[in-house]
Amino acid sequence: MANFDSLVNKIGKLNIDNMYGEDFMQTWHKSDDELKATLNTADALRNLRERNISTKVFDSGLGISIFRDNSTRTRFSFTSACNMLGLAIQDLDEKKSQIAHGETVRETATMISFMADVIGIRDDMYIGKGTKYMHDVIDAVKDSAQQGILEQRPNLVDLQDDEDHPTQALADLDHIIHEYGGIENLKGKKIVMSWAYSPSYGKPLSVAQAIIGLMTRFGMDVTLAHPKGYEVMPEVEEIAKKNAEKSGGSFTKTNDMKEAFKDADVIYCKSWAPFKAMEERTELYGKGDFDGIDKLEEELLQHNAEFKDWSATEEMMKLTKNGNALYMHPLPADITGVSAAEGEVDASVFDRYRDQLYKQASFKPYVIAAMIFLSKFKDPAKVLQDLEDRGTARHEFTGKI
Amino acid sequence: MANFDSLVNKIGKLNIDNMYGEDFMQTWHKSDDELKATLNTADALRNLRERNISTKVFDSGLGISIFRDNSTRTRFSFTSACNMLGLAIQDLDEKKSQIAHGETVRETATMISFMADVIGIRDDMYIGKGTKYMHDVIDAVKDSAQQGILEQRPNLVDLQDDEDHPTQALADLDHIIHEYGGIENLKGKKIVMSWAYSPSYGKPLSVAQAIIGLMTRFGMDVTLAHPKGYEVMPEVEEIAKKNAEKSGGSFTKTNDMKEAFKDADVIYCKSWAPFKAMEERTELYGKGDFDGIDKLEEELLQHNAEFKDWSATEEMMKLTKNGNALYMHPLPADITGVSAAEGEVDASVFDRYRDQLYKQASFKPYVIAAMIFLSKFKDPAKVLQDLEDRGTARHEFTGKI
Amino acid sequence: MANFDSLVNKIGKLNIDNMYGEDFMQTWHKSDDELKATLNTADALRNLRERNISTKVFDSGLGISIFRDNSTRTRFSFTSACNMLGLAIQDLDEKKSQIAHGETVRETATMISFMADVIGIRDDMYIGKGTKYMHDVIDAVKDSAQQGILEQRPNLVDLQDDEDHPTQALADLDHIIHEYGGIENLKGKKIVMSWAYSPSYGKPLSVAQAIIGLMTRFGMDVTLAHPKGYEVMPEVEEIAKKNAEKSGGSFTKTNDMKEAFKDADVIYCKSWAPFKAMEERTELYGKGDFDGIDKLEEELLQHNAEFKDWSATEEMMKLTKNGNALYMHPLPADITGVSAAEGEVDASVFDRYRDQLYKQASFKPYVIAAMIFLSKFKDPAKVLQDLEDRGTARHEFTGKI
Repeated sequence: MANFDSLVNKIGKLNIDNMYGEDFMQTWHKSDDELKATLNTADALRNLRERNISTKVFDSGLGISIFRDNSTRTRFSFTSACNMLGLAIQDLDEKKSQIAHGETVRETATMISFMADVIGIRDDMYIGKGTKYMHDVIDAVKDSAQQGILEQRPNLVDLQDDEDHPTQALADLDHIIHEYGGIENLKGKKIVMSWAYSPSYGKPLSVAQAIIGLMTRFGMDVTLAHPKGYEVMPEVEEIAKKNAEKSGGSFTKTNDMKEAFKDADVIYCKSWAPFKAMEERTELYGKGDFDGIDKLEEELLQHNAEFKDWSATEEMMKLTKNGNALYMHPLPADITGVSAAEGEVDASVFDRYRDQLYKQASFKPYVIAAMIFLSKFKDPAKVLQDLEDRGTARHEFTGKI
Repeated sequence: MANFDSLVNKIGKLNIDNMYGEDFMQTWHKSDDELKATLNTADALRNLRERNISTKVFDSGLGISIFRDNSTRTRFSFTSACNMLGLAIQDLDEKKSQIAHGETVRETATMISFMADVIGIRDDMYIGKGTKYMHDVIDAVKDSAQQGILEQRPNLVDLQDDEDHPTQALADLDHIIHEYGGIENLKGKKIVMSWAYSPSYGKPLSVAQAIIGLMTRFGMDVTLAHPKGYEVMPEVEEIAKKNAEKSGGSFTKTNDMKEAFKDADVIYCKSWAPFKAMEERTELYGKGDFDGIDKLEEELLQHNAEFKDWSATEEMMKLTKNGNALYMHPLPADITGVSAAEGEVDASVFDRYRDQLYKQASFKPYVIAAMIFLSKFKDPAKVLQDLEDRGTARHEFTGKI
Repeated sequence: MANFDSLVNKIGKLNIDNMYGEDFMQTWHKSDDELKATLNTADALRNLRERNISTKVFDSGLGISIFRDNSTRTRFSFTSACNMLGLAIQDLDEKKSQIAHGETVRETATMISFMADVIGIRDDMYIGKGTKYMHDVIDAVKDSAQQGILEQRPNLVDLQDDEDHPTQALADLDHIIHEYGGIENLKGKKIVMSWAYSPSYGKPLSVAQAIIGLMTRFGMDVTLAHPKGYEVMPEVEEIAKKNAEKSGGSFTKTNDMKEAFKDADVIYCKSWAPFKAMEERTELYGKGDFDGIDKLEEELLQHNAEFKDWSATEEMMKLTKNGNALYMHPLPADITGVSAAEGEVDASVFDRYRDQLYKQASFKPYVIAAMIFLSKFKDPAKVLQDLEDRGTARHEFTGKI
């Protein structure tokens, strides 16, 4: 198939030597070639699956998941990705384990990895904690593999940390690329990452940061919009700025939602908690000051309530290019009159974009599978070609289900 | 093998075009041929397994389970069915998910289905809710498949709703057929679906309804027995009446347990809550009136206690044909002196029928596997034959375990 | 490969006819040949995996796990063992099941076993309970298989009971054998099973008992050391004594930790609760006397606190042979200054032995896999050879990950 051949061909030409045997953490630690390879591999795996060609590359093996925050779609995406490659899932449920017993991250990481091929972790609740935890896990399994304790070294897939949400942002980017017919068409497109009101408190910053940290890589004009007080981490803004310079795009900030929406091609609009408040919460948490956390929460909710007009309303959407910018959200959204009295988006806007939003979400399992795939094969283009040549049906005895 | 050949032969002659790509909800929405195909396929799959011939038709893929009520045997049956076909299980634990976040059924259904081949749901607690929920899930995944969001459309297996319990009743029917040596021998056999006392409150009606809704399909004489006030849904009684007319059997109701047991060939005897009370509970639940629910529960328990003599005692069993009717129960039973001071059945009766009761339960995994199988293959007879011809050992390198 | 050939050769010569189709409970119910076969099979399976040769002997099938106590490493070890043989895991979470409903062990055991190939159980909390529960499960599935209710009879792997911890002790023994270059080198080596202080209450006796019950089998000089009042079960001491007589080793007891450590080759040092107290707790539990349990706990903690000097300190370790005995622990350990103010071991001792401790733990998945393997194949040596000859890559298309 032409499309598949072209993807495999592209992957074969990219410089991705550093992905083999490595982990997938923040996108800003990956080269453009590495990000392209991830997207192309995701598309190639999806293409094989659509043609009922098995992508099972493991005869047996385990994918370990650790969710330190609730999750439906990321949990199912990780399971799906593992399953399509032939790995079974074993979840580390920290409540059913003896981890409270006081053992170190280093120990737990090794103990769960004797037959692990991949570890997926979501740890996004506390600033400065999630990324550190993941690096501790990586260091532990690397060390244990070097000492001959582990026969293989499981690679880590970052399923959301306190700074970035790489599987989300790459799935989002894949969606945009498909909408615009190619990565080469992103140049000059205006994408807005806008804060929105939600009655809930303390949503992670990592989606907003993931979007500005990734979309600035490929020439887009990225606008970050939020009320005063909802600043994201300065380090990530710095990354976005440098990305834009390098890619020939731009990175702008504004506290005016209308200005942001004007002539936008893509609207990404969701709530998050201010970085400084998240930092304070992490400190209070560290001290075990739960009264302090409650008080902070109250203040945040009051502050939040001042910005109820920050919402992807019909009126706001009219300001976008031709009034029909691509509307995006990582889901679930706080929909006004549906899941919240006042929320991030008008019900009619959400409904109009529903199919596209679900399509957006559909890229995530493939992006995760691609991350695993690229960590496991030195010559992924050849393996993809081998899979097509092998031509095993995913479900046997039938042409179509 | 003769038996296998005969099953495959029968399946090949049935009109089951409407099963391919569809779901399995209430038995009364299935034709006689479709029900027979389900039973024959269950038997054929069991036959292959007994001969250590692999029934794995999926190289990879997922079965999603959603249990909105506790479950051991149905959970294990669904897992077993998926496993024997090559699907891994991913459970949607609504407590660990973000579903409380207010997202719609439509959204959740799509989000868990990107790589789902089948979805099994148990939702039996509230009248009018379970079936509706399942149809919402079906509509959502159908729609998402049509929109190209899902690559495949997972088929739904109803693992118990508020009206019917199709996997239970079909496993039960398969058991009866095996006991009597063929579906053609059911004509004229008397089966009693009798209410029984249990100290617990609010057991689902769906088993009782499933039994009268299914057993009337194949010429049996079905008697529904319960104390006044324990009526089931009138719509299902109507279905049972029409079934009996069509099949040449009969459907009778009585409030006299002794009359019911007299000369019965099969006794199915278990507790349930009255339909009207369940309806009231659903309304109270809808209003969030938990005090009202507690009050209703008390009334029900008092009412219940008036009918402690409704039990499958030795004395009652003596009334049945030759004093040795086939005793059935979906398990677990409230056994007098074992799991309850006074319960649904005498310990000595239960003990005498224990092996048969367990045999009865053993059909469920195969019935579920058959439902999945028939939804996935256009020509299931051919696929079964192909499986025998392929002859892969389920466990390798050995003839017998 | 020479090592693999030699292992297969050894297994082929052992008398292990009684392992086929059977269960793995306490090591003292297994012959020396059976224990050697378990260790050799574990090593052979590990060898295949290290060479990326698939050990998948099941095309489909289920391993059922029942954890009646929290677990990380044993849970992951069991999952890994099942996965490498081709079995999927289904956990029986007693909280999500209807087991509270009052059903019998016999019933539950059958209901979860319709497609089960193996059942792994951890039940170590109450003296006299765990082993009994496991035997009840075994009796149930044996009976159900004989009655034709089950198509196959799942074999049980004891993942820790109230008396023994066979998977732990055999993994430990495999570690010692590897450290000393062969089972024939164990003769005359001194191993100490010593009690140690921990601030927690009521750790199972089963590890200590497992060690003295197993290490006395192969000619080692085994010393059991603990403060007065921390006696283990007299029956197990009796077993250790007889083992030592038969194997040409020795079994000594002491209440003096220093005397025990002197010139020791191997130190196994961990906390446990006294047998008599555990027995009392079981009785109180049986009566539902939870105040009594709290009171007992307090007394135990006070008693415990008198022996804070029982710890694997640097000073104590200096007493061992050349000051560098092999230090062992089943993990997680209570490390002084790390996971406890005062604990079972000095942080510097633990750190120095960390890699060896993790290596020790790495044998457990293979030991469990070997137990399953030997219960499933009449001629395991031939099956191992067949696996090498088949030579399927565990992960395809690549030589090395």
